Amino acid sequence: MPKTVTAPIKPLELLRRSIDSNIMVEVRGNRLYSGVLEGYDVYMNLVIRNAGETINEKNSGVFQRLLVRGDNVIFVAPSIGGGE
Amino acid sequence: MPKTVTAPIKPLELLRRSIDSNIMVEVRGNRLYSGVLEGYDVYMNLVIRNAGETINEKNSGVFQRLLVRGDNVIFVAPSIGGGE
Amino acid sequence: MPKTVTAPIKPLELLRRSIDSNIMVEVRGNRLYSGVLEGYDVYMNLVIRNAGETINEKNSGVFQRLLVRGDNVIFVAPSIGGGE
Amino acid sequence: MPKTVTAPIKPLELLRRSIDSNIMVEVRGNRLYSGVLEGYDVYMNLVIRNAGETINEKNSGVFQRLLVRGDNVIFVAPSIGGGE
Amino acid sequence: MPKTVTAPIKPLELLRRSIDSNIMVEVRGNRLYSGVLEGYDVYMNLVIRNAGETINEKNSGVFQRLLVRGDNVIFVAPSIGGGE
Amino acid sequence: MPKTVTAPIKPLELLRRSIDSNIMVEVRGNRLYSGVLEGYDVYMNLVIRNAGETINEKNSGVFQRLLVRGDNVIFVAPSIGGGE
Amino acid sequence: MPKTVTAPIKPLELLRRSIDSNIMVEVRGNRLYSGVLEGYDVYMNLVIRNAGETINEKNSGVFQRLLVRGDNVIFVAPSIGGGE
Repeated sequence: MPKTVTAPIKPLELLRRSIDSNIMVEVRGNRLYSGVLEGYDVYMNLVIRNAGETINEKNSGVFQRLLVRGDNVIFVAPSIGGGE
Repeated sequence: MPKTVTAPIKPLELLRRSIDSNIMVEVRGNRLYSGVLEGYDVYMNLVIRNAGETINEKNSGVFQRLLVRGDNVIFVAPSIGGGE
Repeated sequence: MPKTVTAPIKPLELLRRSIDSNIMVEVRGNRLYSGVLEGYDVYMNLVIRNAGETINEKNSGVFQRLLVRGDNVIFVAPSIGGGE
Repeated sequence: MPKTVTAPIKPLELLRRSIDSNIMVEVRGNRLYSGVLEGYDVYMNLVIRNAGETINEKNSGVFQRLLVRGDNVIFVAPSIGGGE
Repeated sequence: MPKTVTAPIKPLELLRRSIDSNIMVEVRGNRLYSGVLEGYDVYMNLVIRNAGETINEKNSGVFQRLLVRGDNVIFVAPSIGGGE
Repeated sequence: MPKTVTAPIKPLELLRRSIDSNIMVEVRGNRLYSGVLEGYDVYMNLVIRNAGETINEKNSGVFQRLLVRGDNVIFVAPSIGGGE
Repeated sequence: MPKTVTAPIKPLELLRRSIDSNIMVEVRGNRLYSGVLEGYDVYMNLVIRNAGETINEKNSGVFQRLLVRGDNVIFVAPSIGGGE
């Protein structure tokens, strides 16, 4: 039985697949944003809808829409079931 | 009934739509600026009118007009009802 | 009565308009410089005349002329009445 | 008996060979991610599957899929037996 | 009587005019260098002759010649009477 | 008797000569890696075989193979006898 | 009697003239390296022979040959009599 082969996923391809899905974004300075990915560009700037903000593990607000600058991003995690 | 499909929004497109609307800009060093977006460029440098400044959660002044350098921006949030 | 429409102002355009006017420049490390803008380039390097320096909110000197490197700039604010 | 000569391995070539293998990624801020490498790009942005996160040597979660931004990467280590 | 109009001075032009004159250079990490500007390039790397070094406001040495890397420069100030 | 003249060695040339030799790499954050250089690129990303890791002067592990990102490198030292 | 006019010295030109001479290199993190400059490139990466290392003003070792990454360089000083 042949081994399942999966095609590699380019980082920006993962973002493309995550459009309209929930993501979690870790940003320098202990900031976490979670919401629906609405858009991105090659600099990993992200547009997030209904973005909940967590600073130092405390909820600190919700934004209808947020543009997070890619420079400060540590990671982007599609939510479970998302990004496919 | 078909699922509503929304076109993705590129980060700079969100800025373009936010011209003449209120935005909030978080900048490194616990700085927050809010006012009316007057202009921007691809480096995310921003021109803000009637810009209120908050440092470490204290109001620290109002500027008739401010050019915020994109390098230090963490996020830009259009105010509720703005950015559409 | 139609709403007044204003053309967007590109960040470098704001600098161009501020030539020969007073500006205030916030620089990383709690440094503030105020004086007359004499020149700039696309990197936001600035030439300032009669530049007063404030470090940690204390006056620390005046320079006949100063070249501030754009890399460290946080914001540039035209003085009230300036930049128009 | 001739000395064994090995061809040099370019850094991105090591990533290419590590696709579908386990890797460990050290990221600034005492963050460690380990999982299966699914993709990468020339900026060393990485897509990792089943990514366990360790912060300050404590397990802090598992992500089904993670996009780690290359800017913050300190090193990538293919797991023993991997990367070949 | 017409207002005196002065042409704007590009930042690199100020450096060009300061060749063979005294300058003061503030560098990140509370470092100050003063001496005669001998050369520069577009990255604002500077060659300074008879460069006195001040760290945390204490004299810490004199260098016959110094190449200061532009990346760390905060400002360059031509000495009074210099840079014209 | 003429003075021995040596040709200058470009930095990347030193890396090329160090392939298959032992090197020591100092990385920001008090990290030291030593092992056999297997590859490099123009960004000074390095592939190291049998890489011993020292953090704050304590041994903290050995990696069969390590890709160190060039951005964080402070210096690379070929071991004595190496790099020639 | 005419004033002596000296041609400006470009920063990289100073490095070129310093080949085979002693230099001192200050690097971020209170690191100082001194030895004979063997090579350099446009990024100010430096190859130094017989490089003595001083950290926080304590001697901490000598390297037969060292490649110092330009990114972290604060200044390069040709030793007295050198660089000419």
